[in-house]
Amino acid sequence: MDFTLSSDQQRYRDEARRYAEQRLAPAYGTREEKGLIEPEVRREMGERGFIAPELPAELGGRGCDRVTTGILAEEIARGDFSVSYLQVVGSLVGQILAGSADRDVAAEWVPKICAGEEIVGIGLTEPHAGSDAGMPRLQARRSGGDYVLSGVKSLSFCHSAAAAVVFARIGDQQARGKGISAFLVPLDREGVVREPYPDMGTKAVGRGAVHLDEVRIPASHLLGEEGEGFTQVMRGFDFSRALIGLQCVGVAQLTADETWRYVSEREAFDQPLSKFQGVSFPLAEAETMLTAARLLCYQTLSLKDQGLPHTEQAAMCKWWAPKTAFDVVQNCLLLHGQYGYRTDLPVEQRLRDVLGLQIGDGTAQIMKLIIARQKLGRAKAP
Amino acid sequence: MDFTLSSDQQRYRDEARRYAEQRLAPAYGTREEKGLIEPEVRREMGERGFIAPELPAELGGRGCDRVTTGILAEEIARGDFSVSYLQVVGSLVGQILAGSADRDVAAEWVPKICAGEEIVGIGLTEPHAGSDAGMPRLQARRSGGDYVLSGVKSLSFCHSAAAAVVFARIGDQQARGKGISAFLVPLDREGVVREPYPDMGTKAVGRGAVHLDEVRIPASHLLGEEGEGFTQVMRGFDFSRALIGLQCVGVAQLTADETWRYVSEREAFDQPLSKFQGVSFPLAEAETMLTAARLLCYQTLSLKDQGLPHTEQAAMCKWWAPKTAFDVVQNCLLLHGQYGYRTDLPVEQRLRDVLGLQIGDGTAQIMKLIIARQKLGRAKAP
Amino acid sequence: MDFTLSSDQQRYRDEARRYAEQRLAPAYGTREEKGLIEPEVRREMGERGFIAPELPAELGGRGCDRVTTGILAEEIARGDFSVSYLQVVGSLVGQILAGSADRDVAAEWVPKICAGEEIVGIGLTEPHAGSDAGMPRLQARRSGGDYVLSGVKSLSFCHSAAAAVVFARIGDQQARGKGISAFLVPLDREGVVREPYPDMGTKAVGRGAVHLDEVRIPASHLLGEEGEGFTQVMRGFDFSRALIGLQCVGVAQLTADETWRYVSEREAFDQPLSKFQGVSFPLAEAETMLTAARLLCYQTLSLKDQGLPHTEQAAMCKWWAPKTAFDVVQNCLLLHGQYGYRTDLPVEQRLRDVLGLQIGDGTAQIMKLIIARQKLGRAKAP
Amino acid sequence: MDFTLSSDQQRYRDEARRYAEQRLAPAYGTREEKGLIEPEVRREMGERGFIAPELPAELGGRGCDRVTTGILAEEIARGDFSVSYLQVVGSLVGQILAGSADRDVAAEWVPKICAGEEIVGIGLTEPHAGSDAGMPRLQARRSGGDYVLSGVKSLSFCHSAAAAVVFARIGDQQARGKGISAFLVPLDREGVVREPYPDMGTKAVGRGAVHLDEVRIPASHLLGEEGEGFTQVMRGFDFSRALIGLQCVGVAQLTADETWRYVSEREAFDQPLSKFQGVSFPLAEAETMLTAARLLCYQTLSLKDQGLPHTEQAAMCKWWAPKTAFDVVQNCLLLHGQYGYRTDLPVEQRLRDVLGLQIGDGTAQIMKLIIARQKLGRAKAP
Repeated sequence: MDFTLSSDQQRYRDEARRYAEQRLAPAYGTREEKGLIEPEVRREMGERGFIAPELPAELGGRGCDRVTTGILAEEIARGDFSVSYLQVVGSLVGQILAGSADRDVAAEWVPKICAGEEIVGIGLTEPHAGSDAGMPRLQARRSGGDYVLSGVKSLSFCHSAAAAVVFARIGDQQARGKGISAFLVPLDREGVVREPYPDMGTKAVGRGAVHLDEVRIPASHLLGEEGEGFTQVMRGFDFSRALIGLQCVGVAQLTADETWRYVSEREAFDQPLSKFQGVSFPLAEAETMLTAARLLCYQTLSLKDQGLPHTEQAAMCKWWAPKTAFDVVQNCLLLHGQYGYRTDLPVEQRLRDVLGLQIGDGTAQIMKLIIARQKLGRAKAP
Repeated sequence: MDFTLSSDQQRYRDEARRYAEQRLAPAYGTREEKGLIEPEVRREMGERGFIAPELPAELGGRGCDRVTTGILAEEIARGDFSVSYLQVVGSLVGQILAGSADRDVAAEWVPKICAGEEIVGIGLTEPHAGSDAGMPRLQARRSGGDYVLSGVKSLSFCHSAAAAVVFARIGDQQARGKGISAFLVPLDREGVVREPYPDMGTKAVGRGAVHLDEVRIPASHLLGEEGEGFTQVMRGFDFSRALIGLQCVGVAQLTADETWRYVSEREAFDQPLSKFQGVSFPLAEAETMLTAARLLCYQTLSLKDQGLPHTEQAAMCKWWAPKTAFDVVQNCLLLHGQYGYRTDLPVEQRLRDVLGLQIGDGTAQIMKLIIARQKLGRAKAP
Repeated sequence: MDFTLSSDQQRYRDEARRYAEQRLAPAYGTREEKGLIEPEVRREMGERGFIAPELPAELGGRGCDRVTTGILAEEIARGDFSVSYLQVVGSLVGQILAGSADRDVAAEWVPKICAGEEIVGIGLTEPHAGSDAGMPRLQARRSGGDYVLSGVKSLSFCHSAAAAVVFARIGDQQARGKGISAFLVPLDREGVVREPYPDMGTKAVGRGAVHLDEVRIPASHLLGEEGEGFTQVMRGFDFSRALIGLQCVGVAQLTADETWRYVSEREAFDQPLSKFQGVSFPLAEAETMLTAARLLCYQTLSLKDQGLPHTEQAAMCKWWAPKTAFDVVQNCLLLHGQYGYRTDLPVEQRLRDVLGLQIGDGTAQIMKLIIARQKLGRAKAP
Repeated sequence: MDFTLSSDQQRYRDEARRYAEQRLAPAYGTREEKGLIEPEVRREMGERGFIAPELPAELGGRGCDRVTTGILAEEIARGDFSVSYLQVVGSLVGQILAGSADRDVAAEWVPKICAGEEIVGIGLTEPHAGSDAGMPRLQARRSGGDYVLSGVKSLSFCHSAAAAVVFARIGDQQARGKGISAFLVPLDREGVVREPYPDMGTKAVGRGAVHLDEVRIPASHLLGEEGEGFTQVMRGFDFSRALIGLQCVGVAQLTADETWRYVSEREAFDQPLSKFQGVSFPLAEAETMLTAARLLCYQTLSLKDQGLPHTEQAAMCKWWAPKTAFDVVQNCLLLHGQYGYRTDLPVEQRLRDVLGLQIGDGTAQIMKLIIARQKLGRAKAP
């Protein structure tokens, strides 16, 4: 057993931390106000190999292990939580396209993702259905050499994505999770309308709905087999769940770091705040949880790297790390007193940002279902 | 023992609930955007007896018991959390002026508070000191028939208050909490500069700093005795702590009510969400906590009404009800899924608003100190 | 609203506290070792009106309100948690017999319960079914002027009860909770075999199974109507749930009281332990929770006294007070350090005792179901 | 980064699990009743290399890494929590003697520890002082070629240890943690009296006090330098803290494993209990916590193996793993319903056993202090 970072991992980590501190953190608030990640930031991230570096070189990646990808997400989230979505979505979609797309389609899109030239979103859920992604209403039908899609999907990077992976039905509704196909839909097509959602956080990510009204795409843009998309694609989520865990750990750890500093400098009752156990003990608890949550995520990525089963542990990462991170950031905010409540410190923005990942990509309830099913099998699980 | 509302209390409650639903709730978001409570809302609140009704009729109050005041705060907070600050601050300041101000000064200001004509803020803390209010740097000196004040205070209703109660030193620094005087400072005087704080919530309350630069006020505006203000005034805080508890209970209960409804209507996996124990059980827990927290606050107010000691229990209200309310609102937000995260539902605004009261008026740590001191005496308490 | 005790309630409380301290507490450990409550303790409890005082005088009660009954359970639990079971079971069974038994049967048994002469247990559950009491396997059949019962029931006071209320089927299995009859079974009959359970706590209560093998009882011992017993009897449980809450609050409050004392006397690092926030803050939290839980239970009893609905609130009492009490006692044990872990202090016995009431009379899950059903109706609840 | 077990580690783990299941678990209750671990069990443990295998071969160890030692503690705790104390105490004392004892003394005692022939306890604390170990009252004085010791120490394996490591003062009291010497005291000497403590759990470990009344030991039995013992010995505790974490994780994981099985077999309301989210979700949460806590402990041991700092992380293990394990076992007990409360299942014994390690070897408060000091330095920490 070996918990140390390789020299490559260390180098990536140091570079990402520097980039996060110097380039990302100063404009964290500005990006929220503008509701946008600057395209040059995307490209800089790409150049440095911060987006989907686990993909093979021929598709624009670096052939890294996934632990490295996780470390990068953790570091970038310290600078700007929204920017780290580029990494999570990039790895998720990149993997799907690399694994299931037509070779030419993959060759066209994946390198752009890795380079930060384009964002390709993923529309798993529909506004009416939330975490229940297995019963899409989006319809696809074959029409000559094309598919024609109609319906609506919720999407991260709704306003800025150049394309999106979506799930649709061909023909009648079947059982949940069955008979679903996946497509890559370029979003510059006729019939595409983007509707932004007014979210309380991660505004630079810009979630929203993509309405597809008879949108025509080439048949080559089917991903995997007809009717098999859901199963094939959902497998990729285990990976992104661990990345999400690390995004959350990253932003919470930074906030804890700052709070240790703050309470050791700020005085009350003639002492540094840190001298009070009521102040330092919650921080000691936060350190403990974050250290444990980080390891949980790293191990999940390591299992993925080794090709070992990790669905159960990925679900653990997805419910526990975001919850722990939210709790830590909230506690840190309170330990800053009235300053924590003000928008001129970044803590409150982080609180709003990190809250979203207790919902996105599946709620805690869904994750606990997955754990129970892995333990018991479907027949005995809730 | 009798836990039922009197017919007067019921009448007040019903009227306040109606007013909150019809008049306050629809503009909850607008008030935040404008950063202001409309003056006519203030006056309507006053006309209906919603502000400081426990004060005697000759000062503009209604001579109610404090439980009634609490019920009113709870109800108004359901409509707009910021508007209920008018009640808490009104009762706190009204009580201080009624008890410690020169008779003419009280006669001038208290009826305006009760009528909603003017807001009188209270500046307990200074930006450098947070919850440690016993060592103010604000200086006062006697100058003929006046006092002249210099320093800075943090204040709710910073932009809209016509006057503020502040604590200041006359002469040298003494031991914590000793030798502090209280004053009523009209804020239209020369030398007053208001600096708004950019808070993440309760923006219609408009917290900020009031800078006093050689501000001259008549000697009659001293409250209580010179050097005794802190002790006299701090007593009033027990009352407002229970009111704060009920503000928080009110907004959390409304959110829980709405969430029960939402999860019983929204479907996933072919059933109403409410059929899942993972959804309904957290709500059942929320109901339990809120019911218990409400009783804790009511009893505190009842003790105050009977002239019995209630410092310990008021501190319980102040730390536990805001924390519980925050947790409940956060859980309810999550149970709304992505909709809860959006600003077009009011849940996220409530979350940001209610968070502030874990800080304002003393953190949880301060409250637990108070409880420990009440139990053990100062010598044995932390 | 009035939260003060009446002079009668105060008198009862003081008497019960004195009795608990002087008579019960010294033999708390001995009763566990012997697995028995001394019959003279039972009778003393009866003489003082500590058992089911809410019953009418003609049946041996005192015609008190139920809040008084609750206060008595709280006080007696401070002396010996097991002894307070006499009160909870006494009130529950007394109420059932007073309400549903044949007049002569009630006149025979209820006064004995109130006087502490006999214990009448209640067998709600069967070993195979736990909290799912609505599908008993116990069979009853009419045989001349008698009923004949066969089956097995779990029972508190298994070894010492003179009789027990049980549920049984007459005829075929019907829907859950339907067609169930209730009986009073004297346990000195032929065919009765008692099997003690080796519990980890409340050993003086002596839980166990009563095996009924063709036990013959007079037809007059049917309680209520044939096939209606379950519905009639289950109503009484709301009352006992609040009493259970107060048992738990009582023992936890005593433990908290002792722990405040202990930590203010015991020194470490040259100070009383209580000077450390890490020690005093958990106790301040415990005080808050217990104060709130007590009020929740009192109000439930008050609702019952006024004939108002209280099923939802009783379920709140039943899950939250035992859980809170367990957590408090566990924390107090830890604050005693190695002394808390030793059996020569009573804290560890209390921990084992109070744990049982998170299970007995319905788990937390059942209680949350009840709350959800009260809120949503059965169709929408889990 | 590599989280997989080496083939040696796997072999050890499998052998320990088999031994725990077949040899230890069946007599878990019997050992508690007798208050003793059978000497042959000790020797079998030793033969298999289960005690202190990280020690070098020349002292009877196997030269393993510490992760292996941790895995072995985890596995053995599944069979009998008390037996795993042999491992923790063995490693702790073995390390101290190997590092600080006179060469002949080490050569005499360490191989016996590894072989399970003798137990050598460690008396860190005194009855009057609990977690505050830095101010011992035990006095040592030089007398010719001997030291003579007087005082009292608390000890695990009080009744069965052949010797004990103790801390004592030579001369006057100095500052906390300064001027303390360590000794190895054979317990067959004149003047030694053993007083068992009546603990609520881990009765086979047999904690108690060793009273030393002018006990004479050879000067060679001084460990390390005079006056330096505390500092030298306390370093070893980081290692044992991670082992303690794994003991707790082991017993809790076993209990969770059994509970998954139980709830999938036991039916209520016509379904396996596991079909209810209110049952399965707490278990999914337990799995998550235990997986994370295990990794936290493994990493700590790995840091130790690499000679890297691990004091902070060891403190994390010590407070969080025992607390988490207790919570998990308690929840599992409740999920077993009334069966969990009975002594014929082992769950309640495990609950009592695991509770002790939230106290022993330093409370959670001490551990959080250590974390804060590591973060902030002593001047800024509480």
